Parts: sequence; structure tokens; C-alpha cells
Amino acid sequence: MTSHTPTICVINPNTSTAMSEGIATSARRVSRGEILMHTSRHGPASLEGHFDEAIAVPGLLERIIETENGDTRVNGYLIACFGDPGLAAAREVASVPVMGVAEAGMQMAAMVARRFSVVTTLGRTLPIAERLLHEYGKREQCAGLHACELPVAAFESEDDSVYETLLAACREALKTDGSDTVLLGCAGMSELAERLGQALGVPVIDGVTAGVALLEAVSATGYPVSKHNDRAVPIAKPIRGAFEHLSRSMS
Amino acid sequence: MTSHTPTICVINPNTSTAMSEGIATSARRVSRGEILMHTSRHGPASLEGHFDEAIAVPGLLERIIETENGDTRVNGYLIACFGDPGLAAAREVASVPVMGVAEAGMQMAAMVARRFSVVTTLGRTLPIAERLLHEYGKREQCAGLHACELPVAAFESEDDSVYETLLAACREALKTDGSDTVLLGCAGMSELAERLGQALGVPVIDGVTAGVALLEAVSATGYPVSKHNDRAVPIAKPIRGAFEHLSRSMS
Amino acid sequence: MTSHTPTICVINPNTSTAMSEGIATSARRVSRGEILMHTSRHGPASLEGHFDEAIAVPGLLERIIETENGDTRVNGYLIACFGDPGLAAAREVASVPVMGVAEAGMQMAAMVARRFSVVTTLGRTLPIAERLLHEYGKREQCAGLHACELPVAAFESEDDSVYETLLAACREALKTDGSDTVLLGCAGMSELAERLGQALGVPVIDGVTAGVALLEAVSATGYPVSKHNDRAVPIAKPIRGAFEHLSRSMS
Amino acid sequence: MTSHTPTICVINPNTSTAMSEGIATSARRVSRGEILMHTSRHGPASLEGHFDEAIAVPGLLERIIETENGDTRVNGYLIACFGDPGLAAAREVASVPVMGVAEAGMQMAAMVARRFSVVTTLGRTLPIAERLLHEYGKREQCAGLHACELPVAAFESEDDSVYETLLAACREALKTDGSDTVLLGCAGMSELAERLGQALGVPVIDGVTAGVALLEAVSATGYPVSKHNDRAVPIAKPIRGAFEHLSRSMS
Amino acid sequence: MTSHTPTICVINPNTSTAMSEGIATSARRVSRGEILMHTSRHGPASLEGHFDEAIAVPGLLERIIETENGDTRVNGYLIACFGDPGLAAAREVASVPVMGVAEAGMQMAAMVARRFSVVTTLGRTLPIAERLLHEYGKREQCAGLHACELPVAAFESEDDSVYETLLAACREALKTDGSDTVLLGCAGMSELAERLGQALGVPVIDGVTAGVALLEAVSATGYPVSKHNDRAVPIAKPIRGAFEHLSRSMS
Amino acid sequence: MTSHTPTICVINPNTSTAMSEGIATSARRVSRGEILMHTSRHGPASLEGHFDEAIAVPGLLERIIETENGDTRVNGYLIACFGDPGLAAAREVASVPVMGVAEAGMQMAAMVARRFSVVTTLGRTLPIAERLLHEYGKREQCAGLHACELPVAAFESEDDSVYETLLAACREALKTDGSDTVLLGCAGMSELAERLGQALGVPVIDGVTAGVALLEAVSATGYPVSKHNDRAVPIAKPIRGAFEHLSRSMS
Repeated sequence: MTSHTPTICVINPNTSTAMSEGIATSARRVSRGEILMHTSRHGPASLEGHFDEAIAVPGLLERIIETENGDTRVNGYLIACFGDPGLAAAREVASVPVMGVAEAGMQMAAMVARRFSVVTTLGRTLPIAERLLHEYGKREQCAGLHACELPVAAFESEDDSVYETLLAACREALKTDGSDTVLLGCAGMSELAERLGQALGVPVIDGVTAGVALLEAVSATGYPVSKHNDRAVPIAKPIRGAFEHLSRSMS
Repeated sequence: MTSHTPTICVINPNTSTAMSEGIATSARRVSRGEILMHTSRHGPASLEGHFDEAIAVPGLLERIIETENGDTRVNGYLIACFGDPGLAAAREVASVPVMGVAEAGMQMAAMVARRFSVVTTLGRTLPIAERLLHEYGKREQCAGLHACELPVAAFESEDDSVYETLLAACREALKTDGSDTVLLGCAGMSELAERLGQALGVPVIDGVTAGVALLEAVSATGYPVSKHNDRAVPIAKPIRGAFEHLSRSMS
Repeated sequence: MTSHTPTICVINPNTSTAMSEGIATSARRVSRGEILMHTSRHGPASLEGHFDEAIAVPGLLERIIETENGDTRVNGYLIACFGDPGLAAAREVASVPVMGVAEAGMQMAAMVARRFSVVTTLGRTLPIAERLLHEYGKREQCAGLHACELPVAAFESEDDSVYETLLAACREALKTDGSDTVLLGCAGMSELAERLGQALGVPVIDGVTAGVALLEAVSATGYPVSKHNDRAVPIAKPIRGAFEHLSRSMS
Repeated sequence: MTSHTPTICVINPNTSTAMSEGIATSARRVSRGEILMHTSRHGPASLEGHFDEAIAVPGLLERIIETENGDTRVNGYLIACFGDPGLAAAREVASVPVMGVAEAGMQMAAMVARRFSVVTTLGRTLPIAERLLHEYGKREQCAGLHACELPVAAFESEDDSVYETLLAACREALKTDGSDTVLLGCAGMSELAERLGQALGVPVIDGVTAGVALLEAVSATGYPVSKHNDRAVPIAKPIRGAFEHLSRSMS
Repeated sequence: MTSHTPTICVINPNTSTAMSEGIATSARRVSRGEILMHTSRHGPASLEGHFDEAIAVPGLLERIIETENGDTRVNGYLIACFGDPGLAAAREVASVPVMGVAEAGMQMAAMVARRFSVVTTLGRTLPIAERLLHEYGKREQCAGLHACELPVAAFESEDDSVYETLLAACREALKTDGSDTVLLGCAGMSELAERLGQALGVPVIDGVTAGVALLEAVSATGYPVSKHNDRAVPIAKPIRGAFEHLSRSMS
Repeated sequence: MTSHTPTICVINPNTSTAMSEGIATSARRVSRGEILMHTSRHGPASLEGHFDEAIAVPGLLERIIETENGDTRVNGYLIACFGDPGLAAAREVASVPVMGVAEAGMQMAAMVARRFSVVTTLGRTLPIAERLLHEYGKREQCAGLHACELPVAAFESEDDSVYETLLAACREALKTDGSDTVLLGCAGMSELAERLGQALGVPVIDGVTAGVALLEAVSATGYPVSKHNDRAVPIAKPIRGAFEHLSRSMS
């Protein structure tokens, strides 16, 4: 029986600190160790499409590089946005495991059910979730992808109509798909997962809690991560313009 | 931060108690809680093919049903044979998460590397591993399947030539596949994983430790498991012959 | 023109002799030779899920091993349950071709139509049929999977409401899928196939007749079966407990 | 036990009557009924590519339409060229089952082995075989595609060097693929199958014998064929030029 | 900046010159060079199934061979039927790029949209379109296949009800599939594409204009085409019967 | 015959103006209109991995937004890096077609050959190419992925040893894969394509020329692009930090 106490660094890749607070609360609820919560300093207030994600990624990587260069040793990074933006790049710069909440949520859902329904925010983000299902080998396990058509920012409010709208979308998804498990498609929905699960009487998986638990599981085994091929440290080279300082901090 | 202490029941579906001891040692090394180790009372001394697995499954299910009916509350079951025999049936009879060591090892490997090489015992078992890769959505992540051509029983001995043969097979697999991560394809290899990892300088994943860590992760989140469709409790009905008593114990 | 008279051994892997009688009648209707009908002596009265199948398989294998060791030379084995339980294990112990009725029905359906609809018993068995479609390379040919939600045992009765319920489910399946061929998803439905075909005016395939015809076709060609890799005879080893006698009979 | 005596019409879609004779001999060896052997009157002397097949198809369809309009009732058609040219079109014009020898050979091989190696004539035809493997859902079962680089016409000779070259190619294929079953990729190789099987000690499948046996199996079951959607009779309409007479004969 | 003026040979593989005129008009509207329009002299007046296509292909190949042997140097061939009949054979006989309008339309649609809906003529041709989607790697990009159930010949008329029926089918397809792009599934619909696009307010792709533009694009780059393996010139050999003259013209 | 003169905007997403010059030269060689060449002002001097691409994307998007807001009307954008970084995001911000050179090269290669071999720079970028093959439906058409292990920057030099190393890698790839067409896996290799094609005697495809020709083809047809779902204009919202100005310029 190990006595190891892991530290997981959770990074919110949007610039909304309100959302980071909710994420941190969920993360701490399941953690067996410490949660280091970071918010990106660059990019959009919420990520709802390819452009939003693309602009957000450098700020996310900056926070990981700072943490790698910092004094606190962390045992894993969790990217707290359901599009898993920057995941492959993060794995180049990090020395420890990195997961995204979509990946973690899909893995966790596959451990508790044969098939799961995804319920996310806006319909325009569904193609992003579809691509991730393929990349993680979870297409067969996904019974359907659904949008509740609430923007990400709605989940910063505590307005009960947000919960009700999401609950209705989950019910509809379960019925349409004939499935019995929901995977929530937004880190901002994290705090609602438990309440939804009780209302629906089925597993309602949230990627934030799933990610913290899975990263702590990797940490418990002591396995190192692969650092070869496309996970090797980035090749040192000049960077111009906005993120010039990342070049210096990586050498 | 949770203070929950999970109990994981690990079941060796072959009837070799020598192998169970090695498995339990590995399981306890990473566990944050208790390990309940069970050995099947029916079936072959080692599982090296479809027939062996088929004959072993009722005995495995018997141990799970006994545990379900027993006084110790467990938080998950781990089937400690790389063919994951009886996994779907076990999920019908169990009220908590069940994983096989192949499934757990493949999930864990996918968390630390983009691609992994599998090194297992006899070549005749490779088609079993192939089918599992498909079922778990891990075909793209597997760089190659390899056999060291040692029987399962060899891993009960502490003969160093067993380690050397396996080490050589791992080296060959890594080179052939151009990969940098090994997944060991037999629960009996579990205790050799750490030594192999140090010798090879790459992650060497073992399904037993992976499975314990992952089941504890599910337990930490508190998610229930799906009990609908093909995971619902078996329909009560008469059973004749050898396993007639299971009918009674399930009602 | 060959004058060869084949003998096909049909095995009902559940323990209901009533069902075996219906199966034998169907089998004999298309056979060009002899039908040897066996019923398992161990396991559930009907197979409606993973647990039922798992418990039934050793008894099925016992019957095959007995037949292999017996005086009557058979030319093929047919496993008469739509889940094709124990098929891979049976291929290890048998010296002649083995098919399951799901496999046979799917192959036959693909010979008479581009796409077929499957109509089976309980919805909880659909995931089993899905996996088989994948294994046999028939996913593209299957237009849809449907359950009539009658238990297997219903097909032992001669109650006309059973026929009517199945007929309605077939009609619904054909309409939903836009297909023109039905594959019946239970060996117990075998005797209803012809009547359904006449009522619906489309091919209604039954795996029992399909299997007998296909095994006799293999027999007519004289091809031996592969006995290498995962079809090689099981490795001789001690078996403990309930099926200890199989160890002796295989040596 | 049925006493039905089927008649199978085998059509050689190339215009070589020498090849038709060998094919008929093989067909009759396994048949339980009558073989009606036809040779196309239009097109190339051998089919070794897309152009050859395209030019051969109308002559093949002409022979099927003549047979449909003739006095002898046949129970199935077999297209005796490994590219299965015109198969979909033939299924529109025929009222009974139609198979190609590639389809039949692949189905048969899947009944006697888990994986098979294909050995065909010229390398330029391999893409045709590849497409068929996909269409018939047999990609997973094919261990490898190989060419012996002898032209189709070589198999009309009884020169022993032809046999020796093919034998060597089969040996090489088995070794490269690690498989234990060969599927011959040309109807012209049919008569060599048995000798090759004895020399190699493994199943050597030939599509002609496989096709006759499988069509007779369909016939034994009494199942009608699907005649809807893309298997419905061609829409009556004017045909200009070379095959104008087919328009008349189909009305 | 190139000043090259390409000549594209468009071949209508059915024998309706009325349809050829409409195709030529569309082709010329987008061409940057010359359009050489040919109509087949053999085969059905419209292609609506496998038989129709099979009978049409030799006449199509005859026109390509004549053009190859003629005095006008062409830079590409476009097969103007949505089934792309004879495409692989045409690539053997042609020395320059060959495309079919289905292939061209699918490629073009993939350049302007993530997903497209196909709307074709009769439902019986849908399996042909399905196979082409697979061959061209466009299954993921196709949101749905739909038939307006008008025969090909309808598109030779200028009756407005034809346009209205097609428009309604497009609207229905867009709604059902949740897509925003239509690919027209018949060369005869070509002249209606622009009007449909304006009425629907979404991209409506036509394979004829797509094909001309894409073949001119290949021509602009100056890339030669592959002439190896299954694209090599057909092997010279005797051809009997209806297309005997093709043997001579190819030598 | 159209007289339209298209303007294509080619964007080099790395910050090396030397590389941009070579790319522009290639682009202009095949263009039928104008080439607007832009170089990113932010990010690494070469893109050789996930991190490099991630940091480069905002600068690329900035150039597209500037062009959209500028006075010159362009008919398409080409992203001149073989990883197609930022392609999905670019399609949100652009009002006209956007392609990446990998996508364009793969589409073009599929128009001139059945299978192609990719030869790229460093081995660590191969997983990026692999993912793109999947996304564009070109896995079946790719015969193999190869790295010449020269860094991107090497292709800025005119050193003949660079050409020789690439030539040798192409030869090796063609031989290993049994293919007859090469797709160059780096925009910096563009100017070497013609010379390599002449030396090898096979089509050597370059994504820059392919992309210009294909974008001009789309432009010639006049088709609009899809601007719904995940291609709709990004949702207006505040952006913090480094790319705050993009928020303003998009409103």
C-alpha cells in the first residue's frame, strides 16, 4: 500500500477565473493529494470552436512551461476544456503525464459502461468531440453526441435554469441513444455532475474528476511517460513575436 | 481531498496459487487500500488458449458471486489473466466495476505513450490479444504483438533465464515496432515489470498494477456502474449440472 | 458428382431438450446426410446473456470432446445458439469444421442478399450479435439489429401469439431498415422460418438450416481445417474441479 | 434429408474453352448434381486487369440471360474468374443465387481457417483482389496477397514448371504471412488445388469447388434470393450498338 | 503564371445525345480551355443500375481508345455518369488523368464543406454511390445518401416539375442530415446546380463542373499520371466477338 | 470558357522569409492568376512538431484576418506547412476556401495515382501526417510514410547534398512501398519536386503547386464555401493577452 501524495496541476485554457474556481472545487473533491489550479493569461474567455482553441493554446503551454520550470514538482497535468486543446503539444513540453478532460472522461465512461452519450454546449463544437472520439479509439463506445445549445459562459452562473436545460438535454440524449450513461462535454459543467447523476439515476461522468482520478492512478503506478518521437521535447529554435519568451524558457 | 480507502478484489482465473501470490504482491505495491486476492477452484493451471479460458470462466464467476454475497464490501474486481476471460459475464454479476488486466494495461499504456508493443507468452494466444485490442478501441495505439514463446507456468519460477528471455523479446519488439513502450501480456509477468523497465529505460506496463490503480481511480470518483442492457443482472433461471449451485446463489 | 453422405453433429448448448427437438427437425429438413443431435448436460435452460453463455460453454465442449472420442465419425459441428458460444474453443478441440448458427446465418444471408436485418429475442443480447457481426466481417451487410423481446423459452411453445409477435417484429425491422431479408437471431426460431418467409414474401434465414447446409458444403469439398495457431489442439495440462475429467479425455 | 439434385451453371467469362474444360472438371468433382458449363463468346482470352474484365462482362451477362430464357432450370450461377467480374449486374438479371469464385473462395477459406493467404497470377491484379476483400468483409481474414507472376494462360498448359512455380509461391506466402491456409487466386488454378494441398500439408482452397459447394448449399436450404433495390431486374430501356439484342431478350 | 490552355474530353457513357448537350454546356461554363464532348455509341440510353453500367463500359472505353489514337491531344478525360463506370479500366487505356463525376464531385464537395448530402435519381443506384464513397475515402464526409426517385431521362426534359422535385429532395436531405452542402448524384442534373444553389442558399456541387475544374488543375501542375501496376496499359491479347476491334486499335 | 483571374493568398506559418520565397516561386509557376505571399510574424522559424505548430497558429490566423479585412479580394488561402496547422480555425475566419498543403498534396496524389508514398523531414512529424491521412480519408491511398531526417531549415539552403539526401529517401520509399508516386512532406521541398520527378521517372507531388491549382479550380467553379456549424465565423468574445487585437479586428 503506497503512501504517495500526488500533486496534479489543472489548467483552465480559457481566461475565465470564475470557471477555474468551479473546476478546482470538483478536482479537489476526488483528489487524494494536492490540486494546483492555473488559468491561462492569454486567449478567449471561453472556448467554443476551432479559432477559440487555436488562440488559447499558447497561453496553456506557457502555464505548463512555467510549472515545469517552477519549484513545485507536479505529477500530472489536466487540460480542463472538453476539446483537449494543445494536448499533443503539452505532451512535448511536459515531463509527466498530461490528459485532457475529454480523453479522461471518455476513458472513465468506458470503465463504467459499454456505451455513453455525450452532452456538450453548442452544436458547433460537436465536430471537435467527434474527432477526439476517433483519436482515443472511443467511437464504438459513444452512443451519440448531443448539444444543449447553452454557451460555455452559462455554466459560470448558478442560475437553476442552466441546470434544468442541461438535465433536459441529458434525458433526451439517454432516450434517443438508448444508453444509460452520460459524459458531460464541458469542464464548466463539472459541479453539476453529481446532481444530474442523482436526478437521472445513471452514471453522469465529468472529465475533471475523471482526469484527476486517472492522473493520480498513473502516478500511483510510478510509470514514466514516453518521451520519444512526437512526445520528445520540442527542438530548440528561435521563436519570433508574441511568444518569443517561450523560446528562452525552454532552453 | 478524499480519505476513502478502497478494497479491490483481484481474481486469478487459473488454479495456480503460486501465480496468485506474485499477482497479489504486485497489486499491493501500488494499492492505496486493501487487496483481496482470490484463486479459482475450477479449471486449468494456466490459460493458454480459447479452451483453457472457456473452462476457467465458470470458476472465476463463482468467486465473484461468492464475494458479492459475502460480508466484505469490495470496490472493484480485477480479472488477472491477459485474455480478460469472462469479463462481460462478470460485469453482469458484479455490482461494482470489473476490469481485465489486458483492458487495464492497454488503457494505462495509452495514458503514458502514443503507441505500445505487446509482449506475451505463447504465439497461439496472439489472436486473443488482437481481438481485445479491437474491443477496447486500442488497435491504432498498438505498435505490434509479440510472443516470447515461454509458457505461462515459466513465470512461476524465479529462474533468471525466464527474465532474460522476456527481456530479449521486449528489446526485439521495441526495435521491430519502432515504439518506446512495452505492455506485458501475462499477469504472471507482473513482478518482472519494474526490473524490465529499468533495464530497457522505457515504460514497461503491467496490467495488474494498472488495473488496481484504475479501479481505485473509478472508486475515488464515486461513479456507479451501468447495470442496464448487457450489464444487467443475469435473468434468474435453472442451471443444470456442474454449476447448478450458482443458480441458487444468484437468486 | 460426389456420393459422399455427411454426418453433422448439432449441439444445443442450453439444457432444454424441448428446444433440441425443434432444432433437429429443422436440421434434418435440409440435410443431405445424417444429423447427430446433442444437448448439453450442464448450464442454463436458455442462453440470454454473457453469464448464461459463459456457464454453458464447458458443457458444450464436453459434448464435442465426447463425440471426438466416440465411434461415430462426424464431418462438422454446429453450435445451435445465436451467440455462437464457445466457438473458438470448440475449434481447438474439434478435428473437423465447427460453425455457430450466427456465423452460418450471416454467411448464408450474405449469399442471398446485399443487406439483412437481424431479429432476435431479448434486447440485452444485441451487443453479443453486434460483436459477432464485427468478427465475421458482416457489419456492412447488416441493415439493423432488432429484438422482439420474447425470451428464448417462448419459442419452445407452439402458441401462435409467439409467431405473431415475431412476425410483427420482422415487419417492423424490414420497414425501419429498408431491407428485404431477415436473419432470425435464435436457434429456437428455426421452425418458424419457412412460415415467416411465406408471410413476408422475402428471404427469412435461419442459422440452423444455414449451418447444416454450409457444413455439408465444406464436407463436400474435402478441405481439411486449419489446426495451427489458435486452432491447434489445447495444450495438455491439469484441470481442477468441475471439469477435471476433460483433462483426462483430451490426453 | 433432402433428395434435391441441383444444377449449377458455371460461366467462364473469358473466351478460352481450354480453360473452361479444367474448370468444369473441378466443378464436377464436388458437385452433388449437374454442372452446366458455359464459355463467353465475347471478350479477351484471359482476364488480367480492369480493361480485360470490363470488356468481358457483357458476354458473361449474355450467357446468363440466355440461360434464364432457356429450357434448363438452374439453381445458381458461378462466375469463374477471381475478379468476380459483373457479379452485381449478374445479380440483377438472374433469378437464382450468383457467386463469383473470389467471393466463394474467401467464404470457404473463412470456414476452415482464421486467416488465409491469397496467391494469384499477375501482380497487376492484386488491387482487384484487395477491393473484393473489402467488399466481402474479409480484410481481417486475409493474411496477405501474393502474385506468382505467371499469366492466366499458363494455367491452360500441363507443364509441370507451372505447378512448381505456383507451389513455390504458395510456400513463400505461407512463410511470409505466418498463415496456414492458401486461397488460389485464379479459376485456372483449380485443378492444381488438391495436389498443392497434399504437397503443402495445409488447406489449399479453390474458388471453383468452393463456389459449386456453396451454391448447392444455398439451393439445399430453399431460400429465395433478394430481388429488391440494386438486385431488382434491370429497368427495361433501349440499348444501342453491340448488345442491342440484350434489350430485346430481357423484355 | 501559366498560359497553358487545356483540352478536356468529356464522355457521356450512355447513348443519349440530348443528355450530352446539357453536360457539354455545364462543362464549357467553367472550363479555361477546350471541351471535347463524346457520346458512347453502345449501350443503354440511361444508366440506372449495375447491368446498365456493365453494358455501357465497352462503348465508353472505345471512345477513349479512339481519342488516344486520334489527332487531338487531350489533357484529361471525364466520365460523365455518377456511377463512375469503367473508371479503373479507363485509367489503363488512357495516358492522361481520368476522373469520374462522382469522384470529382466528392473531392470538390470535400474542398468546400466538412460534410455533404448526396441527392441522386433512383433509390436502386444508392448502393453504387455507397461503394464509391468508400473507394474515394469520403464516407466520413458524406452526411447522407438520398434519391429523388426521378429516372435519369427526366433530366433531359426542361419541365419545371423536375426541378421542383429535385429541389424538394435537396431541402429534405439538408434537413435530415443537418448538413449545408448538396452533391448532385447525376450528370444529367448538371445544368440545374446553379439554380438550386441560389434557391437553397448553400453550395450545390455538380460533378461535371467539378470534374472539368479538377482535371484542368491537374493539367496546370504538369504532373504525369501513374502508369504502373493496375494503371499500366492492358496486356495485348486477342479479343473475340463484339469488341474485337479494340484489340487491334490497342496494339 | 471562363476568363476569371483568381488571386490565391499563400501563407507560410513559420517566420522564415527565406522559405516563403521558395514557396512563392513554386506557387507562381502553376498559377493562372495572382499569388499573394504572406509570412507569419509570430512563432518558430520552422515547424517540426506539435509545439511548434501550436505556437505558430495564432500568427497564421492573424495574417488571414488581416487579409479578410484588407482591400485585396482573394479567392482562396493556402497554408504552406505539411502539418496543415490551424486549418479548421482558418476555415472559421475565412470567407473563401482554405486548404493546407498536406490536404492539397494528398488530393492531387489521389488524382494521379492509386497509391503514393510520403517523404517528409524529421521522423518526429510522422504522427502528424498519419492523423491527416485519416482526416482526409487517404489512409488507403498512402503506401507508406517516410522521413529523410533532414530538418526543415535544410531546405532553405541550395546545397546539393540536401537534394541528394531527399532523392535517396524517395528512391528507398518507392522501393519499400512498391509504389510509383511520391508526395513531398514539406512546403520547403517544393522547388525540388520537378527535378526529383525527372530523376525518378515517376510523379513527384508537391503540396504548394497542388494547392494553388486546386484552389484555383474551386474558384473557377464559383462554388461558395460552407459557413455553418464548425465553419461558421467565430463567436465574438473578449480575448485577453497576446492576441487581444484579434478580438477587435473580428468584430
